[in-house]
This record gives sequence, structure tokens and C-alpha cells, in this order.
Amino acid sequence: MLHFDTDYMRGAHPEIINRLAVTNLEQTVGYGQDDYTRRAEQRILEACGLDEGRVHFLVGGTQTNSTVIDGLLRPHEGVVAAETGHINIHESGAVEATGHKVLVLPSKNGKLDACTLEKYLTDFYADATYEHMVAPGMVYISHPTELGTLYSLAELQALSKVCRERNIPLFMDGARLLYGLAAEDTDVTLRDIARLCDVFYIGGTKAGTLFGEAVVVTRPHLLPHFFPLIKQHGALLAKGRLLGIQFETLFENGLYAEIGKHAIRMAMKLKRAFVAKGYRLYVDSSTNQQFFVLPNADLDRLQQVATFEVWGIRGETETPVRFVTDWGTREEDVDALIAALE
Amino acid sequence: MLHFDTDYMRGAHPEIINRLAVTNLEQTVGYGQDDYTRRAEQRILEACGLDEGRVHFLVGGTQTNSTVIDGLLRPHEGVVAAETGHINIHESGAVEATGHKVLVLPSKNGKLDACTLEKYLTDFYADATYEHMVAPGMVYISHPTELGTLYSLAELQALSKVCRERNIPLFMDGARLLYGLAAEDTDVTLRDIARLCDVFYIGGTKAGTLFGEAVVVTRPHLLPHFFPLIKQHGALLAKGRLLGIQFETLFENGLYAEIGKHAIRMAMKLKRAFVAKGYRLYVDSSTNQQFFVLPNADLDRLQQVATFEVWGIRGETETPVRFVTDWGTREEDVDALIAALE
Amino acid sequence: MLHFDTDYMRGAHPEIINRLAVTNLEQTVGYGQDDYTRRAEQRILEACGLDEGRVHFLVGGTQTNSTVIDGLLRPHEGVVAAETGHINIHESGAVEATGHKVLVLPSKNGKLDACTLEKYLTDFYADATYEHMVAPGMVYISHPTELGTLYSLAELQALSKVCRERNIPLFMDGARLLYGLAAEDTDVTLRDIARLCDVFYIGGTKAGTLFGEAVVVTRPHLLPHFFPLIKQHGALLAKGRLLGIQFETLFENGLYAEIGKHAIRMAMKLKRAFVAKGYRLYVDSSTNQQFFVLPNADLDRLQQVATFEVWGIRGETETPVRFVTDWGTREEDVDALIAALE
Amino acid sequence: MLHFDTDYMRGAHPEIINRLAVTNLEQTVGYGQDDYTRRAEQRILEACGLDEGRVHFLVGGTQTNSTVIDGLLRPHEGVVAAETGHINIHESGAVEATGHKVLVLPSKNGKLDACTLEKYLTDFYADATYEHMVAPGMVYISHPTELGTLYSLAELQALSKVCRERNIPLFMDGARLLYGLAAEDTDVTLRDIARLCDVFYIGGTKAGTLFGEAVVVTRPHLLPHFFPLIKQHGALLAKGRLLGIQFETLFENGLYAEIGKHAIRMAMKLKRAFVAKGYRLYVDSSTNQQFFVLPNADLDRLQQVATFEVWGIRGETETPVRFVTDWGTREEDVDALIAALE
Repeated sequence: MLHFDTDYMRGAHPEIINRLAVTNLEQTVGYGQDDYTRRAEQRILEACGLDEGRVHFLVGGTQTNSTVIDGLLRPHEGVVAAETGHINIHESGAVEATGHKVLVLPSKNGKLDACTLEKYLTDFYADATYEHMVAPGMVYISHPTELGTLYSLAELQALSKVCRERNIPLFMDGARLLYGLAAEDTDVTLRDIARLCDVFYIGGTKAGTLFGEAVVVTRPHLLPHFFPLIKQHGALLAKGRLLGIQFETLFENGLYAEIGKHAIRMAMKLKRAFVAKGYRLYVDSSTNQQFFVLPNADLDRLQQVATFEVWGIRGETETPVRFVTDWGTREEDVDALIAALE
Repeated sequence: MLHFDTDYMRGAHPEIINRLAVTNLEQTVGYGQDDYTRRAEQRILEACGLDEGRVHFLVGGTQTNSTVIDGLLRPHEGVVAAETGHINIHESGAVEATGHKVLVLPSKNGKLDACTLEKYLTDFYADATYEHMVAPGMVYISHPTELGTLYSLAELQALSKVCRERNIPLFMDGARLLYGLAAEDTDVTLRDIARLCDVFYIGGTKAGTLFGEAVVVTRPHLLPHFFPLIKQHGALLAKGRLLGIQFETLFENGLYAEIGKHAIRMAMKLKRAFVAKGYRLYVDSSTNQQFFVLPNADLDRLQQVATFEVWGIRGETETPVRFVTDWGTREEDVDALIAALE
Repeated sequence: MLHFDTDYMRGAHPEIINRLAVTNLEQTVGYGQDDYTRRAEQRILEACGLDEGRVHFLVGGTQTNSTVIDGLLRPHEGVVAAETGHINIHESGAVEATGHKVLVLPSKNGKLDACTLEKYLTDFYADATYEHMVAPGMVYISHPTELGTLYSLAELQALSKVCRERNIPLFMDGARLLYGLAAEDTDVTLRDIARLCDVFYIGGTKAGTLFGEAVVVTRPHLLPHFFPLIKQHGALLAKGRLLGIQFETLFENGLYAEIGKHAIRMAMKLKRAFVAKGYRLYVDSSTNQQFFVLPNADLDRLQQVATFEVWGIRGETETPVRFVTDWGTREEDVDALIAALE
Repeated sequence: MLHFDTDYMRGAHPEIINRLAVTNLEQTVGYGQDDYTRRAEQRILEACGLDEGRVHFLVGGTQTNSTVIDGLLRPHEGVVAAETGHINIHESGAVEATGHKVLVLPSKNGKLDACTLEKYLTDFYADATYEHMVAPGMVYISHPTELGTLYSLAELQALSKVCRERNIPLFMDGARLLYGLAAEDTDVTLRDIARLCDVFYIGGTKAGTLFGEAVVVTRPHLLPHFFPLIKQHGALLAKGRLLGIQFETLFENGLYAEIGKHAIRMAMKLKRAFVAKGYRLYVDSSTNQQFFVLPNADLDRLQQVATFEVWGIRGETETPVRFVTDWGTREEDVDALIAALE
């Protein structure tokens, strides 16, 4: 059986699990106050081209989103997001559980548009009853989006401009950022993101670590007391160095970029094969998540040889599906899947 | 200047303010444990045809909605509502502040449709990832809706049927229920509502009292410890008898029905006059809120003689507006407004 | 039967209920944007000697406490209070429901001591693990306290000094402030309070209004978006002018002071009589709440002629009790109670 | 330098890190739906002697406490705990952040006493104002406690009896349970705990795993929708099998007991040596945390050779300190520390 369900089915990249094993018996202080974590922070700041930022390491994506959002908002504020945004759908109401509303805007291919945002903000404050409504206190985007699509640099600059003019922070969920940066057709770099976002995170869980998300705060005054908040949200790992070790390794000798490139190469090979067979793209993604529309007969047949996600609900005659590659995807598995398409 | 902004611009119906004055120096125990409150509860249960229910008196609509919703839901659940629902827009995130998501469904004329609800619930549990999403734990509707429209008995029965088959409570916001029950073309009675909803409230603030909403719990086991929750939500009035006195009066000698009928008669007169002058209805309402689309020139002219609400944002050439009548609307004011239309 | 249970058993002071009746049919805009409310704010600021402050009118004490506290704290912070503080005991967890811990300190006669506070704050930051604990983000006191006792000016100055040195707001619950200001032996004025506290409120519910608490923000930048927060907390009265009218009246022609003086005179008469009869004071209060320790036989006998509160739980041989006077206490009732002591 | 700060300074027990490495490249479904997790659950239920229970694997202690507590309580309820309880002090207000109050009771040596609990519950409901106070909805204890002490079987039975008579769940924080079960003088077994508690957890983080806490629900109907709640609290590990693998290993071939015994042997050796040198016990603990009172001169001298925790704040002449052993403590390090005592 071949597995393309998602990018968190394996453990960690071999270099990372090896590093964890090698350092296993060392004793360090807890909660991320150790040297591994300090060095990981330093390396990430350097990769981001930041002199002044802070990096915090949390365990998983949902907790990272809700902790950052809770830290950035005042009680009367909500977070603006695309209606397809992960925080709006697949986090079991983690944002609302901290008391904040997700203010949804229509999106195209999973992306939030600067004009849509600008118009929403303008209309909001033009409404005489706006003080009875939840104030937009920050903007949440993900890159890649839930649908594997990417913002262009121009799109990101436009969003950032609106946010800065309005003085509301821009927060990027980078759970799959690695795969976005490695895409063949992107013009967005890590440094661009660090320059244009106020807070963002570099996902580890889906990108080579056992777990872990590195939150980069490019304007530290926006999250002044973040440590106790991480603790309060249950997102503080006792053995914090486990995060430090993994991210230090990820940002050493280009491992991060190498992982991304491999997954993208596998994803593109898959995409070309499906397209060549005449399958329709559900959305055109250049990252490690590929979405196709399969006739139900083909879907059933493929499920004999591979596992993958039905995207939403099975249709009457055809159904959208998702195949995901990652750092560990074996080319022979991709080839076997392609062969099964015949 | 004529005032048609909303139905809470005056104090209380003269009989009610008078009753408050007459009883003013009496001493009673606090927090609704007094005899006035007990009698008000009894009268309301009788009017609803309920043997077993409970009635709780809260101060205002937003607090009533968030307290009831918090009481009915488990932490992982959200409340289903029309996207135009009051709790989704004009309550400053009061529901989310208690930790719960508002799960929005598309609506027509402010109404939630039983088929839309049924399909949503079916699709929700058909989705393999549903345990990562907020579970629909109850349904919120308002009657009349934000747009003054009314559910028919058949529509309400269909909604109630879906909810009971799924075992999720149906909660009706009746902030303007009085005006809905008095509408000329409704086939829904208070007893129907008491039979079909699990919890609903009879608004006082917009319907003749100084303030106050009477929450009718037709299935008391659904809200087993509601008193401390009311207190926790800051919704417990120390001098609880003020609510008891007002609602006892409202349900005495048909005052409740009389108030509704007057407001509806005034609203219908207004509607007919606007329509006769050729103005378009923004939505066709048979209750005390009337929505018209006014050319901007007419809008500006009318604002010289009357206050009323621009509905949303002023358009480029024409703008939706709202005129509201209530128990205290004077026919001479309606006539003066109609005269100003010429 | 005589009633001394509490100070919110009657309606409103006759001048206030009368003013509500007289203005009843006027139409004003809602939510406290009316002229009555503006004038009430102005009068209170003048009485406080404040040029710059803001006044917000909420409905009840519990909601006022939780709304102000939620507004002043950041998510990782808690509110410091005496262990006997109202927010710690009798508000059904309203503060915790907004996500914040009540950090309790030992108290004497219901009062928080500046030295205790200073030591707590010093120790807190001296503890190496302080970032794992809830940070003290503000201080809550009440004046009079739950036990009817009063801070002296020196005590209040000392508390304020500690708070300002530490840069944490001092918030005073003044639900019974009127009775504190009217006490015979107090050296604290309203102007002192306005100078020494960052936020405080002047209670109406227990002091002559039907309901209502006037929140005075002496440093408005500390609560920058308070209006939507009031709404979110369900504490925004639709017919806001009802609060404006009542507080405008309360601060007119010295009514506020007059009410206080009457209640204090009645309370002192009661106290002297109990003491003269040889009853022990449970706590020595100079305000409108009087606490005595009654042998159970006397307790049972008195309950034949009067209602009053058993303070806590009935003891085996003797029991603490509370008698409360207010603006409406009739001297003949006090005399009748005293006569019953024989 | 010797390190006795705490029991989470190393990685995982060698057998566990090895198992993670060996299985690293396998692909499994996420979120704990894999076979490793299923087997780990089965083994734990067997070890507990439970036929009907459920086991959920979460990442860390704070998140486990707040998720379980949020799941067990209704909104108006709080959790009863010793005033020294971890949830009351060192979790940055995680419980309050979910809206619930920690109801503290006095404790002796970190333990909650059944009589104290019984009296508190009786008094609570005897108080006429109890509906204005936070209702005790569950009881939280830890075993070992914050001070390393242990409940006897009789004490635990008494607590359980009170809870069951009152119908409130008993929840045990077992972050260091392993070390409690291995204590030389305990008469409490894992099966006793499973029989007497409604929910408890077996800590991994401090007991041989990289991270992870196994929540055992002995009465599953008490936590009916726990999965989405785990997700909402950010406590759901994407690569859930990492928890399954670790706990499966921990409960294989007696590893769990072996780890405990080693740590206890080291702790007892340390304790005997300190006592032999004439140092006073701060509290008499038979588990892996040892507390001594050191004259400040000795404290300063020891800090030259070893790291350990000052317990609270440094005293003027002497200071309480804590030394902790674990599965990885080397006997040569213990000997070296003892030698340094001379």
C-alpha cells in the first residue's frame, strides 16, 4: 500500500532523529532556556535576515495559532481570515475557545486578497454600528494555503501594506512554509516574509521534525509577555531542547531547503502524470499538496493501491482528492502510484 | 423631529412604569425569589400552554443570548445560526467570548431553512475530519428575524423536526416576538413556539418594559444549573422583582397583545404609504421594522424631518433604510412622516 | 415583619423613580449616547474633581467587576484581591469566566494591606519560576469592604503608591461607596478616591437607583476600547438613558450625600442599641452594614420579628448576623427592632 | 557539574528513544488512530485492571490538566484543589483561562484531606448564598504531590468515597505517578488508583518518555466528546503514534516499574546521606523529589558542584531546596554529591 494521505505520517528526517538520539542523555535546563534552543533561534533569525526578532518554539499548529492570536488581540477584537482558513474550520474552535471571533472574508483558491481586506476594513468603520461588532484586530493568512496555493510577492506586499496602514498585525501560518519556499514558481523568500509579516511560523511537524513550530516575531513589542501565555495555552514543552535540537538541525547545512526541494520534485512529478492522464486539477497547486478531481470509478480503483484524502465529501460521479508528498516520499512510491493510474 | 430609529427609544408602557412606581417602596427579597417574579413566571407558562417549563428573567438581549448559549453547549460545540443572525454580527463577539463558535449558514430574508440545516448536519457528519471541526450543538433563530421577517408555522415545524431528530436544542431569540405574534399574516402562536422550541425568550426591552427578557425553558433538564450561570454572566438583576413586576403587567389583561397590535397597525400604515409613493421594499416585512430603498435625494430630504437608520452603508445612488414602530408610536407622527413623503 | 436583609430590597429613591416616570415617554437614542447620560457623566466628573476622566454606566456589580477586570488585564495576568473579596466569593466565578485568576491575599477585616501587597509583589518577581505563575496585573479593593469596613486615607494612599510604583492599576469596587463616604469617622472623600484609583465605580443599585453602577475611569488610556467590551459582556443597556437619568438625579442637589447620611444614622443607632444590650460586634463597621454575634436563642427570637442575614453558617451556640440599612430605612422600623432586643 | 534540578533534564529512556528511531520511517495515520496507540491503550488498561476504560495520550502536564478539567466541568463549576496544587500555582492560570475557578482548600504536606473536603462540601451547600458561588464540580489531587508526598490507600479511599457520595469526579494528576508507585513505603497500586479515581494520568515526560501523558478515563461517560476537546486545547499531537510507541514501550517487560525503582533507590540514598549529615528535611518525601533545609553557607557551597532548585525564595539564614532523581540518574553522580556534603 502506498501512502499519500498527508505529510505527517512518518517520524523525523533521519538527521533529526539521529541528532535527538545522540544528545539523548545530556542534561539541560527545561522550557527552552538551553543552548540548543538559543542557537536554533539565532540561526532562524539569521535565515530571516532579522536583527531584532524573537523566536519561540511551540509543539503543534493549532496551539500555535491560538496562542499567537490570543497574544495579539485585545478582548474586543477578532482575527480576519479567509473563509477556507484552517483556524476557521479544522481547529475545533481553538480560536473561539480563547474568546475571539474569526472574521471570515471570501477567498479565491484559499487566498485572501488585499482589495477584499481593504474594502472590508473601510466598510467596517463606515458602519454606524461598528462598535457593536467585533473589531478586526489582526489578519491571519497561511502560506501555502489550505489548498496548496501560494501568495505572490506582490500579493503579500499588498496585504502587508493594508495591515500596516491600518496598524493591525499580519500573522502567517507557515505550517507548510518549507514547501512554499521550495516551489518552482514562487518569488517569495523567507526574508520577504520576515519583512512583510509581524508574526509568522515555520512549521516543523510537516517538514522534517517529529513536531514543533518556530514562531518568528519580527516586531517583539507586539507580543510582550509571550512566555507565560505559551505556558497557559499548554504549549510549553518541558524538555524544550527537543525543539531546539530539531530546528537547529533543520537550519544547518541547507537541510531545510533540501527537504523542500525533494517534496516539490515528487509533487510535480505526480501532478504532471495525473494531468497527462487527463485528470482535472481541483486547484492548481505548485506545492506538496496536489488536488485532482477523480471520476468515482478511478477513485475506487486507486484506493486499492494507495491511501489519500477525499477532499470534503464524495460526489455523485466524481470527487476531489488530495495527494501529499514530503521530505520522506520515495520516488519508487510515486512511480508506483503513477503506474497505477494506467 | 420624528423618531423611527428603533423600538427602544422610549421608557416603558405607561401601565408598566406606573406599576413600578406604585410598588416602589415595598421591600422584597432579591434576585427574582420574590412573589412578583413567581407570578410573572406562572402567567407566562400559562400563556405558553406549558405545565412543566421554567421562566428566567434577564436584563438584555445580548446577555440573554450568550448566557443561554453557554448553558446549552458543551465546550467542543458551537451554535448554528443564519449568517445574518444577530449573535453573528451585532453582539461584539459575546458568544465567542464564552468560548463558542457561531457556525453560520446561508439564509434567505434572514431566515434559516430546514433543508439547509439538514444538509449541513448530514454533510458535517459525513466528513471524515468532523472531529476536528466545531460540532453543531444547538440552533439559534430569531423570530422576527433581523430583517423583520417571520417563519411560517410549517417552516418552524420543519426546523424543530430536524433539531429533534438530531437531538440538538432549538433556541429562539424573541427580542421582538411580541411584534411577530401580532403580525396580520402570521400563523404562528406563542403556544406553537413553546411546543416547537426548547428554549426561547419573550423580549421586553423592545416591547413595553424598561428592560428585560423572559427566557422560557420548555425542557428544563437542558439548563439544569441556570441560576449560577445567569449570575456568572452578569445577567442577574439584584432587584429581580423589577423584572417580575414588568412581565406580570405585560401578561395581564391582554396588554402584551394590545401593544403588538398597535405597533403593527402603525407599521402597516407606513408600509402602505411608502409603497403607494412608489418606494421599493428592501425586504417585505409584516412586523414593526420596515425596510425601504430610498433614492439618496429622498433620504437626505427625509432626514430633515425624521430620524431613522441607514441599513448598513449609504449607497452611491440609493440606500436601504429602516423605520421602526413600537407600542408608543403616535399615529400623528406616522401621519406626519407620510405627509413628508409627498 | 421588619426587613434588614440588605440594601437592595426597595425600588429607587422617590426622586429617582419620579424622574423616570416624568421622562418616560421621551424618545432618545440608545446605548448611553443621549444627553441625560452626558450630563450625568459631567456631574460625576465634577464631583470627582476630574478634568480628563470618562464615566461609563453599567447595570450591575458583578458585570461591572468582570467587564472592568477583563478590560484592564492582559491574558496572562490575574487580579489581586483580598481573600474575602466579593469577586473571589460571591460572583459565581465571573472573573474566571473571562479567563483570569483571582490572586488572593490574606486580609484583615476585609481590607488589603499595602505591606502585604508590596511583599507579595516583591516575592512574586523574586521567585525564579514566576513566569510559570499568573502575573499580578491589577489590584481590586472594595470600599466599604464586604465587612462594611473602610480604608483610611493613609491606607488608600499606601495602596495607591505601591500600585503606581509597580505600574499596575488600582480598581475600587464602590457598590456601597455612598455609605462609605457618609461614614462619621472616614477621612476619605470622593476626590481622594478619584485621585488615588485608576478605575472605580459608584454604586447605584444599593444606593438609591433601581440599578446601575457608574464606572469612573480616571486614566482613560487604560481602557481604550471599553464600549465594545461592555457590549460583549452583556452589560450595555439598550435604553441607556435610564442610567443617565438616575445618576443625574443622584448627583443633583446633594441627593447622593443625603441618602448616605440617612442610612448611616440608622445604622449607628442600631449598632449602639445592640452594643448597649451587650451583644458582641462581629466586626466593627461604621457603614450601613452592621455585624453582630448573636446567641442562637436570641437569633431565633429576633427572626420572629425581622428578616436579616445569617453571615455564613449557623454556629453551635452563637452565630454572626448582618443587619443592613439604606436610603429608605424608616426610623420607626429601627426603633421597633431595637425594642425587640429587650 | 552535577544536575539534580528536576526529572525532565534528559531525553528519553534508551529503550524508548531507540524504539522511536527504529520505527521512524514507517507511515501511519495521524492523531492517535494508529496501531501503536491502540496497543499502548490496551496495555495501560490491562495494567490498570480495567475492562471498560479509555486512554487518551496528550503531550504535556499543563495541557492535560486544563483539557481534562474543562471536559469534566460545567460552566458554573470549579475544581477543588489543595492550595499548594500545581494547577493553582505553576500553570500560568491555564485552568482559569478555560473559564473555571480553582477552589482551594488548606492542605498538609501537599495533601488534600477527606475530612477537609467533606466539611467544605457540607458547608458550601449549607450556605444560603451558595448559588452565587462557584460550585465544586470535581476534585483534583496529585500523587505524588508537589512536595513528593504520597496518599495512603486509606486516604485515597476516603477521598474517593466523599467524591462518589457527592457525585463529583475525582481526578488525579500523575505527572510523577511512576515514582509514587515505586516508593518503598506506599500501599497504593495502579489498580487501586484506577478503581478509586474517575480520571487520572500516568506521566511520561518525567518518567522516561520524551514527552507525553496517558489520561486514563475509568468512567468514559464522564468525558463523552474528549477528542475534539483535545484538539481545541492544542493538545492533539499530529504524529500521534509517537505517544503510542513511547507508552507501549514503557508498559512492556516491566520497564515502567524498573524506571521507578531506580529513581527511588537513588533518592533514598541521597536522603539518608543528607539526614546523616544532620540536615533537616523540609518535608519527608519517599519519592524522587527530596526537600532539605540548608544553611545558606552550605547552599552556596553545594551550588559550586551541583545544580538544584531553591524551593521558593532564599531565606535569611537557611533555605529550602529540592533535589530530584529520575530514571537516568547515575549512582556515581549521587555519590559525588554526597561526597560534596562533607
